Amino acid sequence: MKTIKTILVVGAGTMGKQIAGRAASKGYTVFLQDNSGQALQAAKLDFQKTPVASFITYCADLTSIDVSPDLIIENITEDLGAKRRLLKSLENAQLLTRDDVIVCTNTSDLLPSAISRQSDYKNRYCAMHFHSPEYGATVVDIMPHRRTDPDIAPRLSDFITSLDLDPIVLRKENPAYIYNNILNAMMDASVRLALQGVASEEEIDKAWMLNTQMEIGPFGMLDLIGLDTALAITRQRAKSSPKQWFGVRYLEKFVKQGKLGIKTGEGFYKYPNPSYKNLTVEKFRAISKPVE
Amino acid sequence: MKTIKTILVVGAGTMGKQIAGRAASKGYTVFLQDNSGQALQAAKLDFQKTPVASFITYCADLTSIDVSPDLIIENITEDLGAKRRLLKSLENAQLLTRDDVIVCTNTSDLLPSAISRQSDYKNRYCAMHFHSPEYGATVVDIMPHRRTDPDIAPRLSDFITSLDLDPIVLRKENPAYIYNNILNAMMDASVRLALQGVASEEEIDKAWMLNTQMEIGPFGMLDLIGLDTALAITRQRAKSSPKQWFGVRYLEKFVKQGKLGIKTGEGFYKYPNPSYKNLTVEKFRAISKPVE
Repeated sequence: MKTIKTILVVGAGTMGKQIAGRAASKGYTVFLQDNSGQALQAAKLDFQKTPVASFITYCADLTSIDVSPDLIIENITEDLGAKRRLLKSLENAQLLTRDDVIVCTNTSDLLPSAISRQSDYKNRYCAMHFHSPEYGATVVDIMPHRRTDPDIAPRLSDFITSLDLDPIVLRKENPAYIYNNILNAMMDASVRLALQGVASEEEIDKAWMLNTQMEIGPFGMLDLIGLDTALAITRQRAKSSPKQWFGVRYLEKFVKQGKLGIKTGEGFYKYPNPSYKNLTVEKFRAISKPVE
Repeated sequence: MKTIKTILVVGAGTMGKQIAGRAASKGYTVFLQDNSGQALQAAKLDFQKTPVASFITYCADLTSIDVSPDLIIENITEDLGAKRRLLKSLENAQLLTRDDVIVCTNTSDLLPSAISRQSDYKNRYCAMHFHSPEYGATVVDIMPHRRTDPDIAPRLSDFITSLDLDPIVLRKENPAYIYNNILNAMMDASVRLALQGVASEEEIDKAWMLNTQMEIGPFGMLDLIGLDTALAITRQRAKSSPKQWFGVRYLEKFVKQGKLGIKTGEGFYKYPNPSYKNLTVEKFRAISKPVE
């Protein structure tokens, strides 16, 4: 099994920089590519005085890369056409000719089978989904599609482990991976309860937090994700599942008022001191036995 | 607003004993009634050498209670007919004649409007749902129905607070309250992922645990609840929502094999050391910034 040593990270946005930096810090040779000179320049500035600086090479043009990477991780915009065109560009730049190269897409919503449908390299193609670090999650979803060669997922799993992250390997392609599926179901149920007037958003969060002993409830999480982001995701889901429009209408009300959650200082809660923070972990205590 | 001082707890099972003991420990005068002499005797033995012993009076017959309780909390079997008959028995025993008495049903699945439909005392009737202490939850759901007098929920809320528990007041009647609604949605999504072969139960729990930093995932929770109990709940839900039969079929497979979860030593995991325990909180760590 070919070891991964050289990595090409495509896209120098938040995610691309995070992955490039982490891989470089673990001793991988990293190429960071972006079509935007400005983005590349910003990344270079971010890294320049850090210990990883010497492990990262910046490139504006895919054809200028003179080594053959073992692993390519694409982090460009969440758009099917753009991701397909990128795959074609990688092919044109002769970066996919070695039959052990792996190409990954860091996508939240798209399916690797759909992106690689017209590619001759669909057997080397796999989704690898990093989570945003602000949620503190170490999970990386590795999701092969039906045509992905069977050696790819185990090689990626080893790679993720070497980054000190936690691989979750899916057995088959599934929209929204695992966690986001469960989270979406939880959010839908919560929004329905609020819309039906069963309880206030705050009371729903309280019920969730006190029962699970988590420090945040569904509406606090929506404020953290950003109500505009949540609206975009819900709208996307509503396209294939029209039942979801109730969630779109609900979130739109807040977004139209400029209430986007933490980033605007108000969403379901007011920040920086949302009322749910009063339910701290100290509050959590087991019901003592009847005879004490 | 009439203060609650004297409480009649009907049903001396696990829940009834827990509520009676807790109320007695807070200085309430408690009557504990059960039609089973054996259950009453067992409760008496449990409490006899405790500080609360002198606050609890045991009675086998509702008509033998010579004081008029301010609050009646019913904890009998989860059966509509049985709960309706009990309400009638309370009426026949002249326990509902005072117009400030409150009658609560500690039900998980039934609706107070349905139980009290044929009663003349539906305006004094309310659901008050305690959680099993083994989950460590302090939450008590207070759920009035459409005909419940408006003073009932605030009085119950004060009572629950006086027990050092956390009241969640619902604005209207809703099957499965708040938390169980969200939990059911989460469980359904998880079971679907497993049934579709997207990932193993263990991998699904791992995705949930690492993302939420909770110490247990959906399948670990099912093992804790008991797969027979989960099956009974899912079967009940399937009656009104036929889509739910997928969950019934899935759980039946385990129950038929005698795998009921923690209580039989095996469910989705083997006990006492289920593999998910390896994902301890020490494992949880934030993704460090790219430049460290």
